[in-house]
Formats: sequence, C-alpha cells, structure tokens
Amino acid sequence: MCYLEPPHIIVRKWLIAGIEYPLLAEHMSEFMARTLYFTSLLYRSTTEHKCAVAEFCGNMELCRLTEQVVFSDIYKVSQYNHWTSPYLDCDAEALREDNVFKLEVAELKSKFYERAQALLHGDLHTSSVMVTHESTQVLDLELAFYGPMGFDIEAFLRNLILAFFAQDGHTDQVNDRKNPFSKKFIALWDEHKDGFGEAYLPAIYNNLELQQLVQKKFMEDLFHDTLGFGAAKMIRRIVDVAHVEDFESITDASRHADCECRALEMEKLLLKERRKFHAITEVISAIQ
Amino acid sequence: MCYLEPPHIIVRKWLIAGIEYPLLAEHMSEFMARTLYFTSLLYRSTTEHKCAVAEFCGNMELCRLTEQVVFSDIYKVSQYNHWTSPYLDCDAEALREDNVFKLEVAELKSKFYERAQALLHGDLHTSSVMVTHESTQVLDLELAFYGPMGFDIEAFLRNLILAFFAQDGHTDQVNDRKNPFSKKFIALWDEHKDGFGEAYLPAIYNNLELQQLVQKKFMEDLFHDTLGFGAAKMIRRIVDVAHVEDFESITDASRHADCECRALEMEKLLLKERRKFHAITEVISAIQ
Repeated sequence: MCYLEPPHIIVRKWLIAGIEYPLLAEHMSEFMARTLYFTSLLYRSTTEHKCAVAEFCGNMELCRLTEQVVFSDIYKVSQYNHWTSPYLDCDAEALREDNVFKLEVAELKSKFYERAQALLHGDLHTSSVMVTHESTQVLDLELAFYGPMGFDIEAFLRNLILAFFAQDGHTDQVNDRKNPFSKKFIALWDEHKDGFGEAYLPAIYNNLELQQLVQKKFMEDLFHDTLGFGAAKMIRRIVDVAHVEDFESITDASRHADCECRALEMEKLLLKERRKFHAITEVISAIQ
Repeated sequence: MCYLEPPHIIVRKWLIAGIEYPLLAEHMSEFMARTLYFTSLLYRSTTEHKCAVAEFCGNMELCRLTEQVVFSDIYKVSQYNHWTSPYLDCDAEALREDNVFKLEVAELKSKFYERAQALLHGDLHTSSVMVTHESTQVLDLELAFYGPMGFDIEAFLRNLILAFFAQDGHTDQVNDRKNPFSKKFIALWDEHKDGFGEAYLPAIYNNLELQQLVQKKFMEDLFHDTLGFGAAKMIRRIVDVAHVEDFESITDASRHADCECRALEMEKLLLKERRKFHAITEVISAIQ
C-alpha cells in the first residue's frame, strides 16, 4: 500500500457526489497503459514474460476471491448473494437460469484464469484509488497477478459508467467522461515497436497498413474483453453481498431497485453482445 | 525419453509406406485425452493449476524454438527458409505479403504464449511417436510446457491429413482414418464433472441442456484452435528448413512441388477460415 497524505479521498465518494476530478482520468489511464503495455509481450521477450508469469503464479488470494465473487457465487444458490428484495428476486433467478448467459460467463472465467497477457492490479475499482487535486494513488499493488488486460481496464471505465446510471438518482446532469487509455497505450506501442517485444516482430509486421491492422484488431479484442469483464463485475455488485454503494446511497427503495434493474439488464446485454460493440460511444448510446 | 524395445518404428515411416497401424490412433487419442483433460481446469482447482503452470514456466527451450520456426521465421526473409525452388518461390513470397494471413498467425502465436490451458508435449509430430503392433511410445516428455490444447491435438491429426495428401504421390488408395480423441475427452469430462474442476462448477452448470451446450462450445473452440495451429505447423514444414519427409520421398520434382503447392493453399485456407469448419468430415471434404 502506498503512503497517503491526509487530503486523499477515495474516488467513489467523489463520483457519487457528482464532482469532476480533472487529473483522475489522465493519471489512471497513464498508470494502466504503462503497467499493461510494459508487462505484455508487446514489449517483452517471451523468456522475460514466462519468468515474470512464474514469479506471480503464487499470488492466488485475490485471484481465488475474484473468481468466487465475479464468476461463481452469483450464478448459483448461495448464502453470499444479496440483492434488493423483493424487487429484483425474479432478475436474480433469471440470471441463474440463463444458459446462454452462463456459457459466456464461463468463457470469460477461462480467459481470466488461463490467459497471462499482462500484470494486473486485479481489484482496480474506485475504492482502490485515492485522489487529491494534484495526485492520484493506487492501493493494494501487492496482490497483482497475470491475467487478461481487459479485466483491469474495465474496472475504472465501468465504474464511471455505473456512476452515470446512479446519477439518475441524484441529478439530471450526465457527464460524458472520456478515457484516454487507448491513445496512451497506442503511443507506447508506436514508440517501442522496433524493440524486443515478441508479439509482433518488426521484420514480419513490416508495413504501415499491417501495423495499423494489427493495432486495430488488438484494441478491438481488448475492448470486447473490457466490456465482458466489466459487465460480469457490475452484475456481481448488483446481486451479491458486496452491493454497490452508488445505488445504496439512493434512499428511495423502488427508485433504487429501478436503477439496479436497468443497470442489470444493460450489463447482461453488454456481456452477451459485447462483440457487436466497436467503441465506447456505442456503449454510451446503448445505455442512453 | 522412454526406453524402447528394438521393434519400435517411428510412425511417419509407416504412414509414408501407407501401412495401417491398428492401435496407434487408439493409443494416441487416449494419451492426449488423459494428459490434456487432467492438467486442465476441467479437472483441477485453480490453485493446483496455477502451481503447475509456475512449475513448468522454466521449460522455455522447446517453446522458444517452436515460436521461431512456426510463428516467425517463415513470415520474414530468413536464411532458415527453404522451399522447393523455383516452383514455390511465388507462394513463399505471397505468404510474406499476406497481411490478413499474418494477422491470424499473430492471434495463434499470442494464444500459444499466453494461454495456459493444459500441459502440452509441444512437439507431438509422428517422429516423436514409436510403435510396435502392440504398443505405442511417446518420446521427449521432458520438454513439456503449458499452452493451448489445440497445439498438441493437431500435431497427430494433421500429420495424418498431410500423409493423405502425400499419398497421391505414392498410391491411389486413400484411407479415411478416424480419430477417437473427442469421444475419450468427453467421456473423461462426463466421468469427473462432479469433481473439483473449477471451469464449470456443477452448482452452476446444473442442467443437462447446459452441460451439453458447454461441451459443444468447448469442443468447437478446441477444433478451431486445432485447425489453426495445424495449418501454421504444416505451412512451416513446407516452407522452412525442416521440410516434410513425406513430400521429400516423392522423387519427381514437379509432382513433389505440385503436392506441396496444393497442401500450402489448403493450409492457408484452413488457417484463415478455421472458424467456419465444424467437424473433421468438413475438412476432409474441403481437401478432397
């Protein structure tokens, strides 16, 4: 855990209050782009990468807990589940009965466990990020493990989308927050593309058209992963014991349940149909 | 390496001679089904799996060599490339110039390196398998590493397909060899589905329809991987220094080149369009 000066405040509190925080997206996208790029095969040799993966395989605690809460408990009858009852009883049951949906969840779970794409923070929700007006601090780095990049990227992006929904309960004003992650990630890739990264050797990926094609495909796959993992995590936060503080702070029960229900339907759609979306603007449109 | 009694003969020699070997497919499918199933998350807990992955991360030699020969050298100008010249000069160049094709190769390469799905032999071609009429021996197990199952499965299946092509140069008779891998793999899965395997927990994947859906999707994804990796490896053996002994033994140079050219076109199609095939019979039809 980083040492924090007293004025730092957990990001989620700011979001619920609807306060804009000017440097947050900039800092977080920088943190994610650098961490994910430099620990992937885009930058590393395969030997380096395998060594690093081995080193972090023992970090199982967070991995196990995540698997249980995001991919397992909410899809079975479990004492750990908890939703806004009775409003969402049918929705929680529908979740447990949807075969096609559970098939997609299994695919995400297998990717979460089997794909060592980059070093993840693994729990990068807004409660793991502390801010002042000048600086941003990320907590709990000691639990990092290798996994699919999308799992980390979504964490921040999707918390913003969730807050967007919750704001219906607080204010009519909706802010379309932009995330500069992709730009920073591509900039790092361009800067180091003639280095030792094993994924796309310069002697093979040797013309501009091909390089652009490669980056487009990579970022699109990453976007689909991001949407899938994001939806899985958000659904969990609506249905299981953790619950979403953003919604909890809406005191009117039926309005609260209505927000949750709309978010749940949206997340189910995003998870099942994630491959049909091509940009964050399409997601925002679908939500609106 | 296993100790071998003198009558064992390398499988490829039998294939070129067109001799049927009754127990070979049975033994190899049993070996592959058991090794791949029991080292995957279908059977294992996530903790066991991560520990095992860490243990084998140091086995880099075969991994590195494979990456170089299968996914890299043949797609760039390299001293290690060697094909039947001048007949295939244009084909080898076309391979280096095909952007869409190289994009697909990159996807397979990333899966090869990043996805720890099961413990692979990694070099399970017909020269690694020795036979008598009663027994089958697999060599070089000490180089095993974790990777995508399809990489191993193809090795044996696709050698049979390649031999099928080469037999045009030897004999008119074509044997449609069947592979019982899928049946054995599914049987193991059914037998152990209520065990500790983390991928599809029985409390979630709790009805027959869903279980069948899950297995169908798993086997179809595996089939697409198998075709992709198979094609990548076969292309390598036509274009690079290793070359294919099956074709080499055809002495007429233009007939030899014709066999290689047809195989190359087929493999390119299989790699690019692999997701469109649903069964081995469709592949056999496409080849015929």
